[in-house]
Amino acid sequence: MAEAGRLRQAIWRQVDPEAYQRDGLSPTNRAVVCIVAVSSIIAILETEPTVEDMAPRAFACLEWIFGILFLVEYPVRLWAEGANPRFRGVQGRIRYAISPPAIIDLIAFLPSLVVPLLPGTANFMLLRLFRLLRILRLARLGRFSVAMGHLSRAVTDRREELLLSLMLAIFILVFSAAGMYLLEGENDTLAFGSIPRAMWWSVCTLTTVGYGDIYPHTVGGKILGGLTSIAGIGLIAMPTGILAAAFSDAFQRTRVARHGDATWTA
Amino acid sequence: MAEAGRLRQAIWRQVDPEAYQRDGLSPTNRAVVCIVAVSSIIAILETEPTVEDMAPRAFACLEWIFGILFLVEYPVRLWAEGANPRFRGVQGRIRYAISPPAIIDLIAFLPSLVVPLLPGTANFMLLRLFRLLRILRLARLGRFSVAMGHLSRAVTDRREELLLSLMLAIFILVFSAAGMYLLEGENDTLAFGSIPRAMWWSVCTLTTVGYGDIYPHTVGGKILGGLTSIAGIGLIAMPTGILAAAFSDAFQRTRVARHGDATWTA
Amino acid sequence: MAEAGRLRQAIWRQVDPEAYQRDGLSPTNRAVVCIVAVSSIIAILETEPTVEDMAPRAFACLEWIFGILFLVEYPVRLWAEGANPRFRGVQGRIRYAISPPAIIDLIAFLPSLVVPLLPGTANFMLLRLFRLLRILRLARLGRFSVAMGHLSRAVTDRREELLLSLMLAIFILVFSAAGMYLLEGENDTLAFGSIPRAMWWSVCTLTTVGYGDIYPHTVGGKILGGLTSIAGIGLIAMPTGILAAAFSDAFQRTRVARHGDATWTA
Amino acid sequence: MAEAGRLRQAIWRQVDPEAYQRDGLSPTNRAVVCIVAVSSIIAILETEPTVEDMAPRAFACLEWIFGILFLVEYPVRLWAEGANPRFRGVQGRIRYAISPPAIIDLIAFLPSLVVPLLPGTANFMLLRLFRLLRILRLARLGRFSVAMGHLSRAVTDRREELLLSLMLAIFILVFSAAGMYLLEGENDTLAFGSIPRAMWWSVCTLTTVGYGDIYPHTVGGKILGGLTSIAGIGLIAMPTGILAAAFSDAFQRTRVARHGDATWTA
Repeated sequence: MAEAGRLRQAIWRQVDPEAYQRDGLSPTNRAVVCIVAVSSIIAILETEPTVEDMAPRAFACLEWIFGILFLVEYPVRLWAEGANPRFRGVQGRIRYAISPPAIIDLIAFLPSLVVPLLPGTANFMLLRLFRLLRILRLARLGRFSVAMGHLSRAVTDRREELLLSLMLAIFILVFSAAGMYLLEGENDTLAFGSIPRAMWWSVCTLTTVGYGDIYPHTVGGKILGGLTSIAGIGLIAMPTGILAAAFSDAFQRTRVARHGDATWTA
Repeated sequence: MAEAGRLRQAIWRQVDPEAYQRDGLSPTNRAVVCIVAVSSIIAILETEPTVEDMAPRAFACLEWIFGILFLVEYPVRLWAEGANPRFRGVQGRIRYAISPPAIIDLIAFLPSLVVPLLPGTANFMLLRLFRLLRILRLARLGRFSVAMGHLSRAVTDRREELLLSLMLAIFILVFSAAGMYLLEGENDTLAFGSIPRAMWWSVCTLTTVGYGDIYPHTVGGKILGGLTSIAGIGLIAMPTGILAAAFSDAFQRTRVARHGDATWTA
Repeated sequence: MAEAGRLRQAIWRQVDPEAYQRDGLSPTNRAVVCIVAVSSIIAILETEPTVEDMAPRAFACLEWIFGILFLVEYPVRLWAEGANPRFRGVQGRIRYAISPPAIIDLIAFLPSLVVPLLPGTANFMLLRLFRLLRILRLARLGRFSVAMGHLSRAVTDRREELLLSLMLAIFILVFSAAGMYLLEGENDTLAFGSIPRAMWWSVCTLTTVGYGDIYPHTVGGKILGGLTSIAGIGLIAMPTGILAAAFSDAFQRTRVARHGDATWTA
Repeated sequence: MAEAGRLRQAIWRQVDPEAYQRDGLSPTNRAVVCIVAVSSIIAILETEPTVEDMAPRAFACLEWIFGILFLVEYPVRLWAEGANPRFRGVQGRIRYAISPPAIIDLIAFLPSLVVPLLPGTANFMLLRLFRLLRILRLARLGRFSVAMGHLSRAVTDRREELLLSLMLAIFILVFSAAGMYLLEGENDTLAFGSIPRAMWWSVCTLTTVGYGDIYPHTVGGKILGGLTSIAGIGLIAMPTGILAAAFSDAFQRTRVARHGDATWTA
């Protein structure tokens, strides 16, 4: 019994990135990363008819293999989490099973099993795409690195400033769309005939994407368009500047936490 | 009488974000934010004929409800501001009534009442758009957050540098447009036949929007176009760098004001 | 004689921004700024036939007035510079006359006088554009502000890093153009038939302008195009990051020079 | 014999940028930079038929001259490297000959000699392009400047953060492409008929290039397109912010290493 407990403990340390005692990822999780990456690439390529038609059996076969791998992995993880003080007992397992990481693990294999059983092809495409959610497992593993700490600290520390600059962006978006609707709405009903329509132009211009499917034709519209483009530069500059200052802070804090001082000389 | 004064005081603290004694917004102002947001989204959607035709009565009805809400709110605010030492008495009220926030509040309901009374539809579209100015009320409430302080301090501290980089942008804009007018003006009169026309291309290129409605065709024009694009990168980099440094300063100053020291260790 | 000297001294302090004893610009130079701005806007508008045809006489008339103003200003400046210790005597005046600011002043009025005397219209367009160089006078005045000091210090301090990132950009430009020439050169001779042609696509993609006049059509070309776009993000990020750090330095140094310490608490 | 050794030492100090005892580049290496730059420009121009047809003999002739120059340079470098303690003796030479810089030097002249000997023109284009790899020699020389140290330190110090933001970009890329495939896949099979196809749109939108060859047509697609564009702004802001903070660090460290203190006042 103690042996089983020790085995479970060892497996838990292998499969749960939070429980791994060394830096980085355990060998098991590294293998999972590879399988998730490969299966995601295959799930992407499979949607392309010209690629799938080359070897439809190979794709189906690979999908079965991945499905079985994830199918086996799920109960192992569920069992191993029993070694986690947070998820002890039956209640703990249920709590684990409804936690977001476990649901992502579930989604990783369920569609592979369900899709072949469905008779029609109505929601076939959508179900297949569910497999792409496996890729989210990579995000979970990244959470435990120092770099992720920096990124998330910088964003959360300055979330209010970032939200305010998003709000400012929405203001400019609405007013430039309204202006364009007034200036060009009557000439080009299809593109600027209403504010929601003009907002498609606005968002393309403010983000400096500029597809060129719609653009102003009158002099007034071009002046407003030019001003909107320049405002777009400001809207890129604002969050970038906020994030730059926030990263500077986050890096400095890590340094202080390590060396006990904010200056490089210490 | 003292009771009325105390009620007015209480209402004033609810409706004036500057007078609210706790952090954030009072419940009343939170409700106002929601109503303004919803009524703005409706004012935007309403301009789209395919949406309005689905339920023209519902839109008209909602508009009436919002109009009445803002109509009721305006005299309440005017009356409650009497508790504000800055706007005491009749003179104070008049000063309040001609202050920008009060005018925005007025615009928030006047068009809803006036539009249905107008016989023709000549300036109908413009009047309806006035309602969108309600959205400016959100800006007023944002002014009292720490984040807004950071943003505005960063921009105002470095307004000269930002203005100079805008001036530099205008220089490059004018000279690239003049160059394109010389190089391509004779081949493509419609697009580059004058400097103002070429400026439309210039602004699209410098801001890296690049609609693609006009672009150079000659070798010389393409070389100038490439140089203008690269200059555009510089024009994005300059304000972004200025703002990044300014935000760094603004955040540091807040920290100093709070902790009495600029370093993290203190 | 001493009176003339004192008058010259006074005029010199008015016309030479470097000699003005107070902050900002002297009233005379502020007037010059306005005249230069107005005459530049007119020189720009004049190239647009639909605008000039509205009042060709008014434009010609204004041009004469501006020409005469600058014609009068030039000898006044030349005479007043005699009060400048650096430009004393005849030799000093000649040295002043061939200095870049004086040449810009000369260009400001010469074309206005020469253009009407020319019989043909061959180089007429080019000569008229020379007047636009007047706008450079604004740049000269900006040089004496603190903000300009920040901008130029940040750029010159990090000119090597900025040049290196420009060199890196040229590397990526050349190799992405060469790659596209190999991948798409045979299919689309007009757009990718040689490296110089493909460089037009490369520069549009790397700077994220993306006119859309040419874009890859093959799978390999699209993959290279995607990688080039992502490299373009890096090429925007690099100079922006360099400038942000440099501005941070430049602002800090100004603070130190003023307050004798680098921290906000001092 | 000692004389030959001293000559070899002197030549080594001239040709090996790492061995040069003063700042910057040796006169020999400066000449090499010029020749490499000129020959690269010629190799680029040569691919343009309209340019090459003007003087095909001159281009062939120049190519021979450059080939001979690099052919002579290679054994000289190989011989001179004997003065380098790291590459002494025959074994050292072999180790030098298979080091990346030596291989780039080899590629710099081999194609010039091999191309004219080949009978067919099958891989002619590709071979000619090999000559462009000469340009990589410039990169090798840049490695020894302070600025390059800043750039590479900033990037390597924050490579994890930069990789994470690249991973985040790939996540958004995949999910926006998958979303567009679901929303527009049936309407526009050519552009959005599979996830790999939709990724071309995604990468163009996220990097804000926006060629405009494909863009969403349905309302849902336009909403997703707008959100993707805004996410693109974030993806530009994130690496830029990381690099800005990293450059700030790298510059500060250089300052500390030079002056022994992190503050400007010391």
